[in-house]
Order: sequence, then C-alpha cells, then structure tokens
Amino acid sequence: MPTMGDAYVHGYDTRESERLGDQAGALVALLHHDTAYPPGSRVLEAGCGVGAQTGTLAAHSPEAQITSVDVSAASLAQARARVRAPNVTFHEADLFDLPFAPASFDHVFVCFVLEHLGEPERALAILRELLVPGGTITVIEGDHGSACFHPRDADADAAIACLVELQARAGGDSLIGRRLYPLLDAAGFADVAVDPRLVYVDGGHPELIEAFTRRTFTAMVAGVRDASIAAGLTDAERFDAGIAALERTAAPDGTFHYTFFKGVARRPR
Amino acid sequence: MPTMGDAYVHGYDTRESERLGDQAGALVALLHHDTAYPPGSRVLEAGCGVGAQTGTLAAHSPEAQITSVDVSAASLAQARARVRAPNVTFHEADLFDLPFAPASFDHVFVCFVLEHLGEPERALAILRELLVPGGTITVIEGDHGSACFHPRDADADAAIACLVELQARAGGDSLIGRRLYPLLDAAGFADVAVDPRLVYVDGGHPELIEAFTRRTFTAMVAGVRDASIAAGLTDAERFDAGIAALERTAAPDGTFHYTFFKGVARRPR
Repeated sequence: MPTMGDAYVHGYDTRESERLGDQAGALVALLHHDTAYPPGSRVLEAGCGVGAQTGTLAAHSPEAQITSVDVSAASLAQARARVRAPNVTFHEADLFDLPFAPASFDHVFVCFVLEHLGEPERALAILRELLVPGGTITVIEGDHGSACFHPRDADADAAIACLVELQARAGGDSLIGRRLYPLLDAAGFADVAVDPRLVYVDGGHPELIEAFTRRTFTAMVAGVRDASIAAGLTDAERFDAGIAALERTAAPDGTFHYTFFKGVARRPR
Repeated sequence: MPTMGDAYVHGYDTRESERLGDQAGALVALLHHDTAYPPGSRVLEAGCGVGAQTGTLAAHSPEAQITSVDVSAASLAQARARVRAPNVTFHEADLFDLPFAPASFDHVFVCFVLEHLGEPERALAILRELLVPGGTITVIEGDHGSACFHPRDADADAAIACLVELQARAGGDSLIGRRLYPLLDAAGFADVAVDPRLVYVDGGHPELIEAFTRRTFTAMVAGVRDASIAAGLTDAERFDAGIAALERTAAPDGTFHYTFFKGVARRPR
C-alpha cells in the first residue's frame, strides 16, 4: 500500500498540496489517532521505509523514545530527510536479524510491512521477543480484496488482480488485512484485538475522492502497469481500461470503499 | 438479505436463543441505534416484510406514529403476530401504488427493500413525494460484494455469486449498498449522507461468528442451494463445497467481514 503520507507530496502546487494534506490528514487520523505511547516508553518502529508514518508516530508520542528501523539505506536516507523529530533514532537493519536484546522495547509498531513479507508469522514472533512481557504490538495493514466500487467493472477488477498477483510473486500478500487476527494469535500474542477501519468515498466527499480514490488507490494500481504487462498478466489496452474504470468511480455519482485493519496485541506476561 | 431479526428465532433451545438474541442485538444496534423519530411524527416504513425491523423501529421511537406497509398479505400476517407495538399500524399495499396523499409523512424508513426492486430510483422518487418538504428518508441495504473472508475460497465466491445472480435474474441487485448515494441523489433528495456499517468477525468474537457468519450470511447463501442448482448456475458438489468453505471461516482462526450501508437524505424544501 502506498502510505497515506505519500498523498502529501503529490500536489501540483502549494495550495493543492495543502488541501490534499488536510484530507490525507483525515486518513492519517483514521489509522493513527488512537496510537500514543507514554513518556519514556521505548518504541520500535519495524520497517519504517521512507518514514511516511514516522512523523505521525513521533508527533502523537512526543515523549516516547522511538527507534525506527529499515533494511534499505536509500529509504532511511529519505526518512531522515523527511522526519525532523527529536525523539526518533533511525537504524539500518533487517527485520529478521535485528540488533536488539530480547525485551528491549515497551511497544512495537508495524505499518504496511507484513504485506511484503513471505514469513509474516516469523517476523511477528521475532518482534514479540523484543517486547517486555506485557508490552504491546500495533500492526496496520490494508487488504486489496476489500476494495468495492461503483460502477463495477471487470477490467478494474483485473487491474487490481495484477497488483495482488505481483505482490504474491514477490512473496507478499496484499490481502493480508483479513489475516491479521489469526497471524497475531498464531505468533503467540495475547489479548489480540483487530479493529477494521473503513474508508468510504462518495460524491459527498470530493476531498476523499481526490486523496484516496485517485491519488492513493488508483495511483497505486496504475503504478504496476509496466510490471504487469512485462509479467504477461495483462496487456496495455486492458490494463488502461481498468485504470479508466477506477477513475470513473471518482466521478460524483461513483463510490469507493476500502478496509484497513489495525491490530493491537500483547506479549504474554 | 435475511434480516438481522431472523437470527433471534434460529436458536435450538431457549438459552441458546437468548444468547444469540443478545448478539443479534449487537447487529441491530449497529444498524438502528441512531434512528429515532420525535413524538407525534408520522413515519412510513415502506416494505416491512414480516416485521423484522418494525419492532426495533417502534421501540426506538415509542411516541412516533408508524405506518408499516407491505405488498404481501402473508408477510403482514407474520408481522402483525410478531410486533406488538401500540404505535404501529400495518397496511397491505404496493410500494409503487401507495394509498397515501403527497406529503403525508414526516419520515420514511426503508430497510432491505431496494435490493429486491427492478426500479429502485422510481421507488425512491415515489417515497420522496410522500414526505413533507424537509422530511427525511432513511435507507439501509447490504452489499454482498463487500463480503471478505479468511481463508479465501473460490467455491465460496462461486456460491455467493449464485445468490447475486439469482437476485439479478429476479430483477434485484444484491450489490446495491455501494449505489445508495447516487440512487438517493438521482431521486431528487438533498443532504444525502451515506454511512457504511462494517460487521467484522474474528476468533475474538465467538458470538458474532454464530450470529453473523453462520446464522446470517452463510445461512442466507445456503438458502439458495436448490434454486441455484435448478437454474444451472452450479452443481450440488461445488455449491456444498462453497458452503463448507464459508463454515470454515467460522473457525477460531477464520475471519469474516461485510459492509451494510445506511443513507439518510431529505426532501428538498
């Protein structure tokens, strides 16, 4: 999933960028408003990427000590440039080989990461060991199978299926949101609670049409056009028809909805 | 959609029935908690069927005068037996030929009805004329295309598709929830606001597994088994495999979610 934060940088001019920022802000709030860590708590952000969520995390927990880790030096360079929060430290490390002692953190935060992993259960078990007993993990994932739109369109479905298939061939699962509860449960966490967060867009929400339907979801699908054609999953004509159909759902009489899943669980005491 | 109220009557014994009643109550609350009409207001329930929603409607608006209409005498007989509310009057009438003068009602309530109609726009336009200027319409519909579950299964998808296809052949649209906003808008209503209501079920909600996944959704799909086979849409083996797969999602490591849509709009003044 392109992170919500990405919507902030896609504006064509400052005013547009600010307007989108406000509305992307509504999506950020939907996913993150209820995550705040106490002063002095040690928080691991596992897989921070370019830092799209890191600024939000730091702003909501200004007195927590946040350690944000990613395997990609290039992403970390972007994250360092993007996030200017005094309570965040960045580290380059592999999620499956983290340089921290067991029970080093009070809380772990993982957002749009598990979808890319071939072994999400193993990642969760590793993160569990890094928590103090009683410490929490928060996981946020999307689920592309939850996308529903009007008008319905078979080419749009096929274009989304290309994205899902490419993610699967890369070892990931872009339909992982629905699996969050059993994954956390199987990884040995207690008090697992998964709360879905529905984004619904219709003609009464023109800002969300722009920020979510067009610039988040449709842009994300359009982003795999060349890879999908190269992989033989589709041809240009069909894929472009699918993107046009997704754009059509952004008309005033179209609708779009998508469900994110946010899970919180605890390392058993 | 089998109405939520149906879940109340499927218990095998009194204790089970009471437990399910409590949980079906959670679904009733999800859909109906925010519908209450003022004392003395005149409310039309268009398409009350067997009265599954009527008791809830009457209980939430004890001093409103509710007129509940259905085209089926048999359904009305069940509704009269089921609903013992002093503020409800039942009438047998066709939604497209209602015996009421224009502007006879302050509010109109329509639940799980439009999905069955070949001309939902026309029905909404007729109901609009029965409202006083400024009066509200409340519409609740499901959308079977919003059903997402784990584990995923192609036979389960095919069984659900049988239900959708049969509904379409009967002139209806069981994917209508996503169309609620444009339908209300096109029917000439103002201040259209559609609010999705997500039912999410996982191993942490064993009561909802029973009340929603098994006894509402899976039972509804299983109900079209014979008709689907007779229509040549499937065969017994494949359909039964689909039902088994839906039952599988009710295991402790399965998940299920489904979105209802609730729209409220106003006749322009």
